[in-house]
Amino acid sequence: MSDFQFPLRVEKLRERLVQDNLDAIFISNAENRRYISGFESSAGYLILTRNDAVLCTDFRYTEQASQQAPGWRVDRIGGKPDWLADLVNELKIKVLGFEADDMTVDTLDRFRKSLKNNNANPTLRPTSSICLELRSYKDDVELALLQHAIDIGDQAFEETAAQLRVGMSEKEAAWIFEQAVRERGAESISFPTIVAVGPNAARPHHSTGDTKIVEGQTIIFDCGAKYKGYCSDLTRTVVLGKASDKIKRIYDIVLTAQLAAIEMVKSGMTGEECDAIARKIIAEAGYEEHFGHSLGHGLGLDVHENPGVGPNSKGKLQNGMPFTIEPGIYIPGWGGVRIEDVVILKNSKAQILSHAAKINP
Amino acid sequence: MSDFQFPLRVEKLRERLVQDNLDAIFISNAENRRYISGFESSAGYLILTRNDAVLCTDFRYTEQASQQAPGWRVDRIGGKPDWLADLVNELKIKVLGFEADDMTVDTLDRFRKSLKNNNANPTLRPTSSICLELRSYKDDVELALLQHAIDIGDQAFEETAAQLRVGMSEKEAAWIFEQAVRERGAESISFPTIVAVGPNAARPHHSTGDTKIVEGQTIIFDCGAKYKGYCSDLTRTVVLGKASDKIKRIYDIVLTAQLAAIEMVKSGMTGEECDAIARKIIAEAGYEEHFGHSLGHGLGLDVHENPGVGPNSKGKLQNGMPFTIEPGIYIPGWGGVRIEDVVILKNSKAQILSHAAKINP
Repeated sequence: MSDFQFPLRVEKLRERLVQDNLDAIFISNAENRRYISGFESSAGYLILTRNDAVLCTDFRYTEQASQQAPGWRVDRIGGKPDWLADLVNELKIKVLGFEADDMTVDTLDRFRKSLKNNNANPTLRPTSSICLELRSYKDDVELALLQHAIDIGDQAFEETAAQLRVGMSEKEAAWIFEQAVRERGAESISFPTIVAVGPNAARPHHSTGDTKIVEGQTIIFDCGAKYKGYCSDLTRTVVLGKASDKIKRIYDIVLTAQLAAIEMVKSGMTGEECDAIARKIIAEAGYEEHFGHSLGHGLGLDVHENPGVGPNSKGKLQNGMPFTIEPGIYIPGWGGVRIEDVVILKNSKAQILSHAAKINP
Repeated sequence: MSDFQFPLRVEKLRERLVQDNLDAIFISNAENRRYISGFESSAGYLILTRNDAVLCTDFRYTEQASQQAPGWRVDRIGGKPDWLADLVNELKIKVLGFEADDMTVDTLDRFRKSLKNNNANPTLRPTSSICLELRSYKDDVELALLQHAIDIGDQAFEETAAQLRVGMSEKEAAWIFEQAVRERGAESISFPTIVAVGPNAARPHHSTGDTKIVEGQTIIFDCGAKYKGYCSDLTRTVVLGKASDKIKRIYDIVLTAQLAAIEMVKSGMTGEECDAIARKIIAEAGYEEHFGHSLGHGLGLDVHENPGVGPNSKGKLQNGMPFTIEPGIYIPGWGGVRIEDVVILKNSKAQILSHAAKINP
């Protein structure tokens, strides 16, 4: 199978076909398509059987598909869904899994009708998260890209932090970061940069706006770079000028909770067990009600992906999985503190992949 | 109903509920949610009945929803889908339309099971494109935003065109445009900028890369700005240095086809009739095989939306609809020419909304 760009990914997906009693899987999700085949495009489908690998896309992308996805047969398809019936019959697919967490009701309905009208009668079986589970473990190719995205984000943040001034707006600060990321070769930011000043920092998902930086208030800066598809994610809390004792105390609680989770997380632990390490410290300091989100999340081709690291995350954290650790304390009307790094489990322990300075207030 | 931000939009959607025999519609698509309610967010649902209007979102966004969507009752929901059953029972909804072209198979399944488990038994009826059809007509609020997005894109393109130099890469040129757009107050570009130099210009959906500008070759520049959600879309073809007679001849054919379509399109014409005006001119010049895409498309909150303006577009173009007119000729190994403007039908005729200079080679 060395003719594939990512032979091990294809092999692992085929193992899942066997486990799940599927003859083939029909991949519609763009990131899963890219992960399994290497084909980077907004349009196309993969049909992977236990022996065959077919990439279906329209005339705009067939040339690109052939280049990016060696080992895949590239079929040119049109707007009508009838190609699926031909392929199902040719490849003798009896049980076809599809991505029920990606495909719309309309799209499934169109394919279902077309199969019937063209005398192809596979069992269409809904699947969820098969590729997402594979994607939670990163291989060496992915880790190199993820680390590069993280490095770009770290450097761009530090460059931005050095330029923050009283009177600068949240939007202006976010734009400095975005330019710095792009000038370092990232294709884009990995999500809309959050810059939240003062009382805005009390909202974990504040929409960056025209509020200006004020001396002595917390500024939450949550930002990331996307490099060759891979997404970084970093949060730092910064104060310009003198920080109050209250800010220092809350910053210290959040930092202690973050470092404890990084120190104590082990492979085999569930996401909720990891979350509980940080949550307990924040609760004991009296701020349980003020930490209203999960401790972290996996990241890769999506900025939020498996594993989950929250109060209801039953899945286990394992060696080879990168994820964020980002506790926070939010006080309405006052502000907030959040500190986030990306770690990866190796030899059962967390290694920190982010290296942006923590600028303690 | 003046307590709504967009009373006419709500009213028109309610007329559709009556026409389609629906008690209510369940809106999951983000742009439709924004269009109907004014709520700008990545998470939330609308339930609009003939008398009630409920916006359901999680704790992160309830405050924002109350501000942005006056006239809507804001319900705070959690991760479980059981809130839908409560609402269906409270509002006595018997036939509930959902957006089958947006909702995934998994999401529908979760809601369906939850409804059943909670003794709510509405008929769930798949709908397609109801809001998209309403959105194809732009009201005055939308037209002002769209025109502003177009003006930003036009100015940013002209600023960029003046800076193009032999030896500059496609990516560098695209980045100049993006910075110019952002400095003029756009929140982002409206789609990844296409800069295609020389033979790359033969591919209508070329992925902007490291190819450098060469004297005397065609450069296709396809770009847009997003302002308060509204997307502009502009294409110009530029040559640095002296253009060959072949470039001049092909440019002239494309421009003639574009101007003819703009001159002759009338309200009541179908999209395919409009497409045929330009396609006929290109075919008569001997390049029919080299114009492999549709003449245009509607645009608004999405950069591609209704109406369609292509060889199979049966829908009618009507007063109040903006759309692009963008014929092209593409010659493999050589290059291509595409020219695109946005027009709107008013008093049955097209008015041009784009004002970027056409830099004839």
